[in-house]
Amino acid sequence: MKKIVLGAILLGLSQTVFATEILPTQVPVPKDNPLTEEKIELGKQLYFDPRLSSSGTISCNSCHNVMAGGEDNRNVSVGIEGKTGGRSAPTVWNSAFYSVQFWDGRAPTLEEQAKGPITNPVEMGLPSHKVAVERIKSLKGYEVQFKKVFGGSNPVTIDNIAKAIASYERTLVTPDAPFDLYLKGDKKAMTEEQIKGFELFKTVGCTSCHTGPIFAGPTLPVGTGFYMKFPTFPGTEFDKKYEFSKDLGRYDQTKNEAEKNMWRVPTLRNVALTAPYFHNGAVKTLDEAVKVMAKTQLNKDLSKDEVKKIAAFLHSLTGKFPEQKMPHLPMN
Amino acid sequence: MKKIVLGAILLGLSQTVFATEILPTQVPVPKDNPLTEEKIELGKQLYFDPRLSSSGTISCNSCHNVMAGGEDNRNVSVGIEGKTGGRSAPTVWNSAFYSVQFWDGRAPTLEEQAKGPITNPVEMGLPSHKVAVERIKSLKGYEVQFKKVFGGSNPVTIDNIAKAIASYERTLVTPDAPFDLYLKGDKKAMTEEQIKGFELFKTVGCTSCHTGPIFAGPTLPVGTGFYMKFPTFPGTEFDKKYEFSKDLGRYDQTKNEAEKNMWRVPTLRNVALTAPYFHNGAVKTLDEAVKVMAKTQLNKDLSKDEVKKIAAFLHSLTGKFPEQKMPHLPMN
Repeated sequence: MKKIVLGAILLGLSQTVFATEILPTQVPVPKDNPLTEEKIELGKQLYFDPRLSSSGTISCNSCHNVMAGGEDNRNVSVGIEGKTGGRSAPTVWNSAFYSVQFWDGRAPTLEEQAKGPITNPVEMGLPSHKVAVERIKSLKGYEVQFKKVFGGSNPVTIDNIAKAIASYERTLVTPDAPFDLYLKGDKKAMTEEQIKGFELFKTVGCTSCHTGPIFAGPTLPVGTGFYMKFPTFPGTEFDKKYEFSKDLGRYDQTKNEAEKNMWRVPTLRNVALTAPYFHNGAVKTLDEAVKVMAKTQLNKDLSKDEVKKIAAFLHSLTGKFPEQKMPHLPMN
Repeated sequence: MKKIVLGAILLGLSQTVFATEILPTQVPVPKDNPLTEEKIELGKQLYFDPRLSSSGTISCNSCHNVMAGGEDNRNVSVGIEGKTGGRSAPTVWNSAFYSVQFWDGRAPTLEEQAKGPITNPVEMGLPSHKVAVERIKSLKGYEVQFKKVFGGSNPVTIDNIAKAIASYERTLVTPDAPFDLYLKGDKKAMTEEQIKGFELFKTVGCTSCHTGPIFAGPTLPVGTGFYMKFPTFPGTEFDKKYEFSKDLGRYDQTKNEAEKNMWRVPTLRNVALTAPYFHNGAVKTLDEAVKVMAKTQLNKDLSKDEVKKIAAFLHSLTGKFPEQKMPHLPMN
């Protein structure tokens, strides 16, 4: 049962209730890719396997580091041969709760997302999914597992590779942040400053977008996406300084004028661990990010004290990272 | 107690007995760096932390992958900005048993070794150890641990960083390979082919060098090193094809003519997992590596069948990789 904290703010999104919630421990799982222990374990191996890159040096974990905040704390990621991507890597932690993946929402599912970087020339850089499949097939240790997990006469396919990786990613959930414990009734889980910060977070208007289980908008059907224009108020000093408007976001995918500078609203779960901030990683500190958001999205100038309190609240969204065993990668 | 399997071959190395042994579960530990659980855990975090590189992308584990065979299965490793090193990364597994570190033995201890790559311009590429220390110091999560582990008023130093990393590496031991189980009395642990391969391994002469707990020579005092000229018989077809003689090995360190093309004898433990082979990673398969060694070191031409049997034996040296929990890297 979800504990509704904020008063419902109806925005006409088919009666979707906007609220902040305790992080659910159950993630949405697609019907055609049920979670099994073997599949999760196989996906974990693939997630950490740099052989899915042309140089044998970049794994999913290189940019989405699960030993850290789920990304690489760089403005943009470094792929094969030192090549750099165009956008800052989003965290993999709690990504299972999004209704679309990537900054521009171009993949409806974690499965579709997982296929992208493998053949992206500045990320893992394999020439084709066929080559990826051949590499995995050439390792008996993988073949045996794919047979067990997926069955059939040809179990090593790019779709099954993606299904396994997505299954592992669905286990990457960080429950019991101070904020969750607070909502559950432990009134000492948050500091007074954090509680005041939470009140400001609501009154200033951050909850217009940052609500729901991961503070990335309401829970929506797979593939829907919860997007917002950023900057909503363009042309500010911040916009100029950090060049936010340069990247047209979702427009590059859809070529729809109305979607210029539209972005998927990102999660605030563990945001204290995922600097630098925004799609281009241009902002180094959480305090500055709070200031930027208030100005560019709500046209508000926050005082130093307000910024400090909201940032303190955001620290209360750092959850507990589950213990994980290292996978053993099949070597032949 | 070490079980002596081969007849003792005295080579005048102060009566050192050359023999193959069960892999000990106790590693040598220097008196000034005793193993503690907290130190090992801290070292594990540092080992996996890419912030010890200039780009924030390369950790110790990037080239010495403990989820795999302890290295990166590349001919030479890729460091920051896609730069490549000059030699193939040696495995970190069981490296605690060596009396010197690096291919050319230029570091006497794991502690000294750990300091090298951090400032190597083609590896982790930090400008100085001072910068490395500052980076680690800037993360409170690390500072707290260094205080607890090392005490004193200034616990974050490059020496302590190296001590922690070396301590973690001393836990990286792979016991109970089929060969070990066989020596312990389980006569079914090795196949008939592997047992025949072991006999050949001795009679052909591989045990002139590949003996001791990790098949890298006898156990020697720290800093001693067990070196051999490679190729011992230069100018063979293999030498030309794979350009083995090009790199002068230990000579580049010592400028001692007698040490031209001298190399630390590498371990054969888990060798089936660590292709490609030799200091330049020029040889792709284990079979070819066996052929090359017989010719270049012993001036012997092995038959296909002999190669197959020795390679089968080498597969029996693949040990059990201990379960490891992923570390959580301090984020602030």
